[in-house]
Amino acid sequence: MSLKDSYTLPAAADMHVHLRNAPGPIASLVTPTIRKAGIDTVFVMPNLAPRPVVSVAEALAYKQSLQQLDADVNYLMSLYLHESITPDEIRAAKREGIKGVKAYPRGATTNSQWGVVSFDLFHDVLKAMEEEGIVLNLHGEVPSSPADGVTVMNAEARFLPVLKGLVEKYPKLKIVLEHCTTADAVEAVRSLGDNVVGTITAHHLSLLVDDWSANVHHYCKPSAKSPEDRRALLNAVVTSNGKFFLGTDSAPHDITAKKGKGNTAAGVFTQPYALGYVLTALEEAITRGDIPPSSVTEDVLKGFFSEYGRKFYEVDPAKQQIRLTRGGAKVEDSLKGNGVEVVPFRAGEEMWGVEWL
Amino acid sequence: MSLKDSYTLPAAADMHVHLRNAPGPIASLVTPTIRKAGIDTVFVMPNLAPRPVVSVAEALAYKQSLQQLDADVNYLMSLYLHESITPDEIRAAKREGIKGVKAYPRGATTNSQWGVVSFDLFHDVLKAMEEEGIVLNLHGEVPSSPADGVTVMNAEARFLPVLKGLVEKYPKLKIVLEHCTTADAVEAVRSLGDNVVGTITAHHLSLLVDDWSANVHHYCKPSAKSPEDRRALLNAVVTSNGKFFLGTDSAPHDITAKKGKGNTAAGVFTQPYALGYVLTALEEAITRGDIPPSSVTEDVLKGFFSEYGRKFYEVDPAKQQIRLTRGGAKVEDSLKGNGVEVVPFRAGEEMWGVEWL
Repeated sequence: MSLKDSYTLPAAADMHVHLRNAPGPIASLVTPTIRKAGIDTVFVMPNLAPRPVVSVAEALAYKQSLQQLDADVNYLMSLYLHESITPDEIRAAKREGIKGVKAYPRGATTNSQWGVVSFDLFHDVLKAMEEEGIVLNLHGEVPSSPADGVTVMNAEARFLPVLKGLVEKYPKLKIVLEHCTTADAVEAVRSLGDNVVGTITAHHLSLLVDDWSANVHHYCKPSAKSPEDRRALLNAVVTSNGKFFLGTDSAPHDITAKKGKGNTAAGVFTQPYALGYVLTALEEAITRGDIPPSSVTEDVLKGFFSEYGRKFYEVDPAKQQIRLTRGGAKVEDSLKGNGVEVVPFRAGEEMWGVEWL
Repeated sequence: MSLKDSYTLPAAADMHVHLRNAPGPIASLVTPTIRKAGIDTVFVMPNLAPRPVVSVAEALAYKQSLQQLDADVNYLMSLYLHESITPDEIRAAKREGIKGVKAYPRGATTNSQWGVVSFDLFHDVLKAMEEEGIVLNLHGEVPSSPADGVTVMNAEARFLPVLKGLVEKYPKLKIVLEHCTTADAVEAVRSLGDNVVGTITAHHLSLLVDDWSANVHHYCKPSAKSPEDRRALLNAVVTSNGKFFLGTDSAPHDITAKKGKGNTAAGVFTQPYALGYVLTALEEAITRGDIPPSSVTEDVLKGFFSEYGRKFYEVDPAKQQIRLTRGGAKVEDSLKGNGVEVVPFRAGEEMWGVEWL
């Protein structure tokens, strides 16, 4: 054991969550697990089906629906970058406390059929975002294309020139490269200024391509990659200094979307044990020699779980504290209710427990 | 359309099939589909559960059980390379018409827990095989290992030095690098002498990593890889000259092993439409520009489907002819019977039909 058996930390912020349509059966099942995980603040993704959140009014209505499911969570809302959005809508978003605009390259992931073909079309909107301090949240993958040699394995690396192009054109735009999965992405984020950061999920600190190859519950976009890539992510966590913070990309799917007749939906559900999954992955990484035992300090955990994300999004520090205790929980085989069933990451494993202090 | 609408060819040989335990529900379901596909000769894999075929007596008993399921197929039998096999057993195998010994690196694929850790342990057996002309059939992957940076994506490329080492040590040993999936493997086989050949499956001529990422029925070992790798396989088919021939690695699994509670079993089931899948893949490759339209000649098809494999294994040319006709069949959604259900590749698609002439 190279971690302590217990940590007292500020409540966490998860800066990339999928809560699905609200009201709705999956939102009702998973939204209450946010605080269960020791998290008081979440940045909520806008890729709802059948239609994404593309206006301030829709985002505020969505927020209200989520508040009805758990009023004690601070929901940071986002819009889906879409041609219907105007610079005026960006300014209205700023006034209403909406924090970001998420850009999905068209066809790259779940519900991305409304997404971006070229950022050139959005110049005025991006300028307005830069001026207003609205964050651009990037799903950093180009769509797979056999003709261009792009697959799920190199789609993120191929996106990085787009990121760099955006930074050149909009040097003050705040950008999050979401759910980094590669050493290349970590390096790109590090090479850019303070206005460019990356989120890292819990599951990408554990998984490799082999893990999702044979397990549908481990399949997600961007997919988990090589041991070298995982090592880079783990090192990014423990040497973040604000450049990387937690965004779980927790993506609940009903089991029929994972094990049913059709193709496998992409997404790993990590919401209820997000912090424990990270601690477990860090400890496994120490055992493998991927990170030094001394690298997992309380400051690292405070920063990655709670402080860095809030600072970037300009939200207040956590008011409450939590205690994480080794072996204090066990991950359910599945979460069932409202006619849906969602299988969590590391189902059945012993896990770190969470108490609110 | 760049292929003809109909081809009359010698009956095909599929030099890599999994028929499972016989008697048994899956063997009973899939063995009758061999001839349905236009195939009269198959090289049968020995990785049965719970125990592989490791003796001549077991191989002959297995052959007899398969003959009871379809007496009109020529079953070429193999042993599983295991420390219980002696040089005398190799000589007995030769006398009894057993054609090959399959080596699985331990842990690399389905039922490989009995497999090889180091070929050094098998020196006397490999010498006997070289002397007797018994083929070494290689599952050409090293086991995944995060410490060594090995994943399902580079496991085959990492195996190629092992292949080259075997060729150096046993220069006359006949070797098949089974189910090649990479440009590197194609290049390695090409660079070695006439006693080293490669099999190519039907599904690897179509699939990429993206295809199996979201579809459990497309997941297999070795896994499908990049567009560049697929292009190399397609070109290996049309420029084979005997170095590459059909070995489908058709691997039936009951749907519970694909869509059930546990991990996804590796294997694509291609037996009933093996030749049609290849023709479809070649035609798609022409459309994409991966191979020239003129490259798919009748000689190429005769060689890849029927002649090259028989010549390598020293079996007689086909006595019967088959006719393949565009649109003459439709792939079932699944094959059901004996309490099992197996989903075929390209389920529901229109397919080339097969008649025996």
